[in-house]
Amino acid sequence: MTPLFLTFEGPEGAGKSTQLRHLAARLAAAGLPHTVTREPGGTPLGTRVRGVLLDPALGIDPLPEFLLYSASRAQLVREVLRPALARGEVVLCDRYADSSLAYQGAGRGLDPGFLQAVTAAATGGLTPDLTVLLDLDPALGLRRAAWRGQPDRLEQADLAFHERVRRGFLALAAAEPGRFLVLDAARDEAELAEAIWRAVGERLNLPQEQASG
Amino acid sequence: MTPLFLTFEGPEGAGKSTQLRHLAARLAAAGLPHTVTREPGGTPLGTRVRGVLLDPALGIDPLPEFLLYSASRAQLVREVLRPALARGEVVLCDRYADSSLAYQGAGRGLDPGFLQAVTAAATGGLTPDLTVLLDLDPALGLRRAAWRGQPDRLEQADLAFHERVRRGFLALAAAEPGRFLVLDAARDEAELAEAIWRAVGERLNLPQEQASG
Repeated sequence: MTPLFLTFEGPEGAGKSTQLRHLAARLAAAGLPHTVTREPGGTPLGTRVRGVLLDPALGIDPLPEFLLYSASRAQLVREVLRPALARGEVVLCDRYADSSLAYQGAGRGLDPGFLQAVTAAATGGLTPDLTVLLDLDPALGLRRAAWRGQPDRLEQADLAFHERVRRGFLALAAAEPGRFLVLDAARDEAELAEAIWRAVGERLNLPQEQASG
Repeated sequence: MTPLFLTFEGPEGAGKSTQLRHLAARLAAAGLPHTVTREPGGTPLGTRVRGVLLDPALGIDPLPEFLLYSASRAQLVREVLRPALARGEVVLCDRYADSSLAYQGAGRGLDPGFLQAVTAAATGGLTPDLTVLLDLDPALGLRRAAWRGQPDRLEQADLAFHERVRRGFLALAAAEPGRFLVLDAARDEAELAEAIWRAVGERLNLPQEQASG
């Protein structure tokens, strides 16, 4: 079994969770052991921190916000990600460190060098083997998120912020083209699932027929 | 009015909260505007983070623990400490950055350089004018804390840990003798209150009679 660490990144409303479910179903059909988790969350500590971060009643400045995400991430790496990879599983994570660099760095203007230093410590250097970036025009993403109910704190932020975040994600992808698979999130859901499965199959060295089915 | 930032440090059971109340009462009697706060806590965000940190049911590794304390601290500096100092108040804080250096650094073994870098960012360089360290033998401190009811997660940790923390606090005090007032917490409560009031009076340039009354 080949351990593989996959992350899904992109704005709210881009379809990360949907594509993550499609991929998990294909891994299950192929008999490949896998773990699905998310950030913030994924551990009892992370779930509590998630509740704090997404509570619209709390005032949270950008720096403490980043530190809370990093705390959740540090616990997730130690409690879930490393053990699952050590068991040889495929790990799918809905958001990871790139979200902090895009949202708190590019979006909120925190110093990227500081963010990277804390992230290196929080993750212990654990970097995804493949990051699927579902890229989407922020205006469209916000409309999609609004369909799903009450917008949370992130979704209420302004459009200019989301445009900085999008550019941040694209800059991260441009800097590490071997790690990122950038897909247009406006494409057909089944087409996207197929493209993601192809990229995962290549990294797992699955036979062609299995990778395409 | 002279703004003054005072912190109280030391183990659980050393009497920090008691001495903090004595000092606040003397400041009130002297007509000096002051703000009393604590870490973790002091803000709506900090209160939520405090509940997470002190929940004995949650598994929290040392690094995420430090990041949570730092998040609470960063919000406190921005929301409470700097505004109060800008109004010219005396600010009394029950624990601050030295606790992280002693507990997560000396106690848990996290890299001091990393802790200091994150702390510098979290506090924006805001350092206490005076830190009262109530030094106490850990075995005595744990007995005192147990008297007050259910021990929390910190109090359940082992004695060797608390001895490392004590040495950590004393090393911090030795490195900055001008900032620290180290007092033997086993001394009489009224004597300690007098010693603290004298040190605060000097820093506020209060007339001798007011400082000693």
